Amino acid sequence: MRKGFTLWFTGLSGAGKSTLANHVAKALRERGLNVEILDGDEVRTNLSKGLGFSKEDRDTNIKRIGYVCKLLTRNGVVAISAAISPYKEIRDYNRQQIGQFVEVYVQCSIAALTKRDVKGLYQKALAGEIQHFTGVSDPYEPPTHPEIVVDSERQSEPDSLKAILDYLEREGWIPAVGAKAACCHH
Amino acid sequence: MRKGFTLWFTGLSGAGKSTLANHVAKALRERGLNVEILDGDEVRTNLSKGLGFSKEDRDTNIKRIGYVCKLLTRNGVVAISAAISPYKEIRDYNRQQIGQFVEVYVQCSIAALTKRDVKGLYQKALAGEIQHFTGVSDPYEPPTHPEIVVDSERQSEPDSLKAILDYLEREGWIPAVGAKAACCHH
Repeated sequence: MRKGFTLWFTGLSGAGKSTLANHVAKALRERGLNVEILDGDEVRTNLSKGLGFSKEDRDTNIKRIGYVCKLLTRNGVVAISAAISPYKEIRDYNRQQIGQFVEVYVQCSIAALTKRDVKGLYQKALAGEIQHFTGVSDPYEPPTHPEIVVDSERQSEPDSLKAILDYLEREGWIPAVGAKAACCHH
Repeated sequence: MRKGFTLWFTGLSGAGKSTLANHVAKALRERGLNVEILDGDEVRTNLSKGLGFSKEDRDTNIKRIGYVCKLLTRNGVVAISAAISPYKEIRDYNRQQIGQFVEVYVQCSIAALTKRDVKGLYQKALAGEIQHFTGVSDPYEPPTHPEIVVDSERQSEPDSLKAILDYLEREGWIPAVGAKAACCHH
């Protein structure tokens, strides 16, 4: 069995985590890997209904995602999390629980996010209409030693995708294009 | 990739679900399959902390187990649930969500369970000291069309294990002993 791993995206709302996660998932499936995306919303519906956005509830939600990633990872699946996951301590807890863990920090400034503001959430948050909004009225702790950093403000989506795939190939997490899908990690 | 499936045990507390689940898991791993057991207690810690034993909370808990089983199953894993799962409607919901679903009813009478009563729970429940105790003060709805029925009152553990493995082999869910682990389902 190919060794699974967890690809853990973290970053502010709107930074591009889900979009990148979907592109990576597609690329990895094309290489014959089993991939499962756990995004914030789907998980909140299926695992965390009733939880809010207090620190405690966010931590619980992120730990639950981590638990499911652990089960998938140890069964040979590439588990991709695309939740904001604002607190470093809980991301590090998951890293330690899961073991096979690659953290991707999707960087983007609040200024750029407010300018994009696809869903209008930043305007509302800045106007005080949404509470507990990460990066505005709630903390976001950037990772100190992520395996991969992409910058969605200065990098194009294809470039960010390439940076992630290059890292995963180079470190032996995924087979190179053209390599046999059955080859083994490390 | 071998096709995953969910082996869903249901039955009263103490009927022998977890023990059987562990035996089945061991046998399937020996045949080269990826197996993950979701038992009631572990899931309550990792996915459902804070939930109680009302019908609504039980349903939420069992749906969460079902969701994780679905993710594992569609990635080629044999997911085994060993929670009481007292309500037919929710088991059937999970069956429908998961698709590849084999239900095992572990039968045992309250009389026999009270006689065994390894943890002393039935005595307490019958004395009214534990509320919402399935089969005593809370409903248990037996499955109407389970794929497998084992009777832990009249059958030995090895016989029950054999009945389950025989069914899974016969229906092509698992390779026969001696068959190549890589052979495919159906």
